[in-house]
Amino acid sequence: MGFYTAKKIDLEAGEYTIIMNKKDAQELGLRSQSRVKVTNDGDSATAIVEISETMVKSGEVGVLHHISRCVAAHDGDELKIVPTGKPGSIDHIREKLEGRELSEHAIKEIITDITEHRLSDIELSAYVSGVYAHGMNLRETKDLTLAMIETGDRIEFDKHPVFDHHSVGGVPGNKITLLIVPIVAAAGLMIPKTSSRAISSAGGTADIFEVLADVTLNLSEIKKIAEEIGGTIAWGGAVNLAPSDDLIIRAEYPLRIDPYSQVLASVLSKKKATGAEYLVMDIPVGPHTKVHDLEKGRKYARDFMALGEEIGIKVRCALSYGGQPIGEAVGPAVEAREAMAALEGKDVPNSLIEKSTELAGMILEQGGIAEGRGKEEAKKLLSSGKALDKMKEIIQYQRGDPDITSDEIDIGTHTYEILAVEEGYVGEINNHGIIEIVRAAGAPYHKGSGIILNNKRGDKVETDEVLFTIYSDNEKKLEEAVKLARHLNPLSIEGMILEKHPDYRTV
Amino acid sequence: MGFYTAKKIDLEAGEYTIIMNKKDAQELGLRSQSRVKVTNDGDSATAIVEISETMVKSGEVGVLHHISRCVAAHDGDELKIVPTGKPGSIDHIREKLEGRELSEHAIKEIITDITEHRLSDIELSAYVSGVYAHGMNLRETKDLTLAMIETGDRIEFDKHPVFDHHSVGGVPGNKITLLIVPIVAAAGLMIPKTSSRAISSAGGTADIFEVLADVTLNLSEIKKIAEEIGGTIAWGGAVNLAPSDDLIIRAEYPLRIDPYSQVLASVLSKKKATGAEYLVMDIPVGPHTKVHDLEKGRKYARDFMALGEEIGIKVRCALSYGGQPIGEAVGPAVEAREAMAALEGKDVPNSLIEKSTELAGMILEQGGIAEGRGKEEAKKLLSSGKALDKMKEIIQYQRGDPDITSDEIDIGTHTYEILAVEEGYVGEINNHGIIEIVRAAGAPYHKGSGIILNNKRGDKVETDEVLFTIYSDNEKKLEEAVKLARHLNPLSIEGMILEKHPDYRTV
Repeated sequence: MGFYTAKKIDLEAGEYTIIMNKKDAQELGLRSQSRVKVTNDGDSATAIVEISETMVKSGEVGVLHHISRCVAAHDGDELKIVPTGKPGSIDHIREKLEGRELSEHAIKEIITDITEHRLSDIELSAYVSGVYAHGMNLRETKDLTLAMIETGDRIEFDKHPVFDHHSVGGVPGNKITLLIVPIVAAAGLMIPKTSSRAISSAGGTADIFEVLADVTLNLSEIKKIAEEIGGTIAWGGAVNLAPSDDLIIRAEYPLRIDPYSQVLASVLSKKKATGAEYLVMDIPVGPHTKVHDLEKGRKYARDFMALGEEIGIKVRCALSYGGQPIGEAVGPAVEAREAMAALEGKDVPNSLIEKSTELAGMILEQGGIAEGRGKEEAKKLLSSGKALDKMKEIIQYQRGDPDITSDEIDIGTHTYEILAVEEGYVGEINNHGIIEIVRAAGAPYHKGSGIILNNKRGDKVETDEVLFTIYSDNEKKLEEAVKLARHLNPLSIEGMILEKHPDYRTV
Repeated sequence: MGFYTAKKIDLEAGEYTIIMNKKDAQELGLRSQSRVKVTNDGDSATAIVEISETMVKSGEVGVLHHISRCVAAHDGDELKIVPTGKPGSIDHIREKLEGRELSEHAIKEIITDITEHRLSDIELSAYVSGVYAHGMNLRETKDLTLAMIETGDRIEFDKHPVFDHHSVGGVPGNKITLLIVPIVAAAGLMIPKTSSRAISSAGGTADIFEVLADVTLNLSEIKKIAEEIGGTIAWGGAVNLAPSDDLIIRAEYPLRIDPYSQVLASVLSKKKATGAEYLVMDIPVGPHTKVHDLEKGRKYARDFMALGEEIGIKVRCALSYGGQPIGEAVGPAVEAREAMAALEGKDVPNSLIEKSTELAGMILEQGGIAEGRGKEEAKKLLSSGKALDKMKEIIQYQRGDPDITSDEIDIGTHTYEILAVEEGYVGEINNHGIIEIVRAAGAPYHKGSGIILNNKRGDKVETDEVLFTIYSDNEKKLEEAVKLARHLNPLSIEGMILEKHPDYRTV
C-alpha cells in the first residue's frame, strides 16, 4: 500500500489502466497487468497496472482517462494504491477453458466483472475463447442472458405488448428495418427498435437511419416516442442496455469469432432490456453471410425460440435468402434513399419489398392483426402511403426533416462504373467483397459512400454493360475502392451452361 | 494511408501501440485494436491502434516506447500509417480454439507473430486459451518447440557434450542449482545453466545467485565461462533464447494457466537453445506444488523424454518430494547463505544435500562418470571441497567476491519469530503460504527478505517454541509479512493421533 501523486494521462485505453514507476511497482510487488485498488477521497476503482521508467517519476501515478473519471482524480491529488487479488471470475473462466459447466453464480460474477471493467484484455479474451472452445448449454446461456440484462439499464413500458425485430446480419443492403418499423407502427402496434452501428459491415441500421434523423436517443426518449407514435429507430450504443455485450464484442472482433451462445445471449439480452415481449428474427442464410447453410439456420431458429421461452420473449424466426445483397443499394445514404423510395411507392427491387413485408407481416400476425395474411396487410400499409406517413412522423420525432423525399438525399458525388468484361450471366455475388469495397469508399463514416448494383444474380449482361456503380464522398477513397473492386471482382459472370455431361475427357 | 506527426509517449505497454486521434482513425477506417504498418524513413513496424480524443491532435500520432524504438521515431518526424490486415496466425489460433490440429506451418506463423509483437493481448490470450482448452499432440509440441528455438538466438559450443539441469519448480527453498552446477563442473563436465527470476515464487535461481555474483551475462560470456571452467549460472532473461516464451507467459500468468504442451515446449526450447545435449529434470510432486500427484509427474517425465528425443536432447527425470520446502531457508539471501554453507561442509538440512547430490549424480552418470554410483561421487565432490572451489571460480568469473563465506552474506536485519500456539507435531506445510509470506516481506526485490524454518514436517514442537523466523530489509514489510503469517498459518500443528476407529458416533 502507498500514496502517490496523480498525473492525468488523457488516453482512452480499452482497459482501466494506471501507470506506475518501475521502482514503486517493484516495491509494492506489482508487475505489468497486476491489479490494484485506487482510492481518491472516498471514490474507489479497480485498475490494471502498466509499468514505466520515464513516464511517471517514483512517487507519481499515471491515471488514464477511465480511472481518472471513476475516482475524480486531478493532477496533484494523493491517490491510495493497494495491490488487490485477482477477481474471482478468473477461476470461473479457467473452469470454462477446462470444459466445465458454469454455475449461475459463476456466470453472474464473470459478467459483473466485465461490466465493471475489472478484467484485463487477456482475461476477457480467455472468457470469449472458453465459450467459443467449449460452448454453453441452454441453462448457462439463459443465466448468461439474464446476467447481461441485470448489469445494465432496462426500459419499463407503460403500454403493452412490445414488439421487436432483429436481423442476425451478414447480408449487405439489409435496410428492411426502415420499412418494417413504419409498417408495424402504422398498424397500431408498438415497436421500439434499437439498432447497432456498423462493426464489420458497410453500415448498420443506426448509420443508415442517421442520414434521415437523430438516432442518439436516451431511454426516456425511446419510451416516449414509442408510446406516442408506435415506432422509433434508435442507436443502441447510446443507451446502457446490456453493456457487457459491447465489451465482449471488443474481444470477439479481433479474433473474428462469434461464440454461438454468446450470439444468442447478445441478441436476446438487448431485446429483453428494451422490453420486447414479441420478437421476429431474420436469419439470412448464404455462403457469404454469417449463417452458411439451412441446417445451421434452423439450429439458430430453434435455439433463439428456446432461449426466448426461458426469458419470457415469444420468438418467431424467418430463414431468409442471403445469397446476394437485399435491394440494389449498399451504404448508408444510398440505402436510406432506397428505403424512402420504397415507402414513397416508387419502383424499387422486388427483393426489398418482399422481404420487408414478409417479416413485417409476421409481426402483424403475432399482434393478432390479419391472422394468416400478415404479408398482404403489410403490403397494403405500404402501398396506401400509411407507412410513409408513419415514417415522416418518426423522422420528425427524432429531430429530422419529415418532408425529405428520396430524391433529396445526398449521396456521394464521386462515382465510377464497373463494367462487365465479357457477356454472360451474373453468377455468385461475394457479399464480403461488396462490403469491403463500400468500406474502402469511406462508409460507414462517409455516409454518401456506397454501391448501387445495376445487375444482380441471374441477370444477363453484355460486354461493357455496367455491373455496379461506386459512390464516394472523397476522390482518393473512390480510387482505392475502384482498385479493390478490380481486385475482388465481387460479381462473377458465367456462361449459362456451366457443365456438359457426359464430359468426353472422363468417358 | 496517411502521414502523421510523431509525438513520443514514454509508456512501456505490453503491446506495440500507437495512439491516433479519433477523427483520423475514423477517416482511415480504424478502430481500437486495429492494426497498421508504421513507417519512418525506411524503418517499419506493425502497431496496434488505440484511440484518443485529447491525447493527440488530428494529424498527430502518439508513439509508445516499443514502436518509437522500432522505427527510430523522434518528436516531429512524419510517420506513414497504413491500415493492414490481421496477421495470418489469427486464423490458426481460431483453428486451435475449434479443437483442430495445427500444421507445422501454422505453428511457425503463430510463434513468429508473437515474437515480432504482431499479436495483441487479446489474440495472444486466445492462443494460450486454445492450447489450454484443446492441448497439442507430440507432433505439434515438437513443432512448437522448434519454432520457439528458431525465433531466438542459440549458443553454439565448441566443446561437447553440453549437460543441463532444470526444475519444474513450485517448491520453495529449491536452491539446489547452487550445489548441482559446481558439483558437475568440478567433475569435469560442462553445464552452462540459465535460470529465471521469480515470477510467482519467492526467488528464482537467478535472484538467489545474484546475491553472490552478476547473473546478467551475454551469450558469449556464457559460452566462454562454461568452456573455460565448466559451469556458469546466468539469468536467462538477459539473453534472447526462445524469446516467445516470456511473451507467452505474459498471458498465462494473469490467467494462472500452464497449458501442458506449452510447459514442455517452454522448458525444452530454452535448453536446446543453450545447446543442451543431456538434461536431468527435477519434477517436484506434492499437493502444494505445480505437479500434484505421482501420476501427473510420471506423465510429465514420459513426455519430457519423448519430446527430448524428437529434438535431440537425452532427458532423464526425477520425481522429487515436494511436500515442504527444501532445506530450511526460503528467500534470495538466506537461500544463497544455506547453499554456500552446504558447499563449505557446514551442518545443513539433509533434504538439501540428498536432493542436490541425487540429481547431480544423475548428470554424472549421464556423462559416463561413476556408473551406478553418481550420488556417492557427487557427495565426495561436495565433502572434499572441490565443489566449493569450483563455486568460488564461478563467482569470480561472474564478477562476484570469490572469498565470501556463508556467514558474511547479508540477510534482513528486521526479524520476527512465529511461535507454536500449542504442542504437537508439524503436519502439512503450505508451500504457497510460505511463498506469500516471503513475498510480503519484500522478496524477491528485497534480497535479504525471507524465512528460516526452525521446524519442519514431523518435528515435535512445544507450546511457544519457534516455528519459523521471518527476515526483512524493511520494518513495514516485516509487519505485513507477520500479519499474513498469522492469517495463513502455513505450518499446521497436529496431535500424533489423528483419528480413532471405530468412531463411536457412527457405530
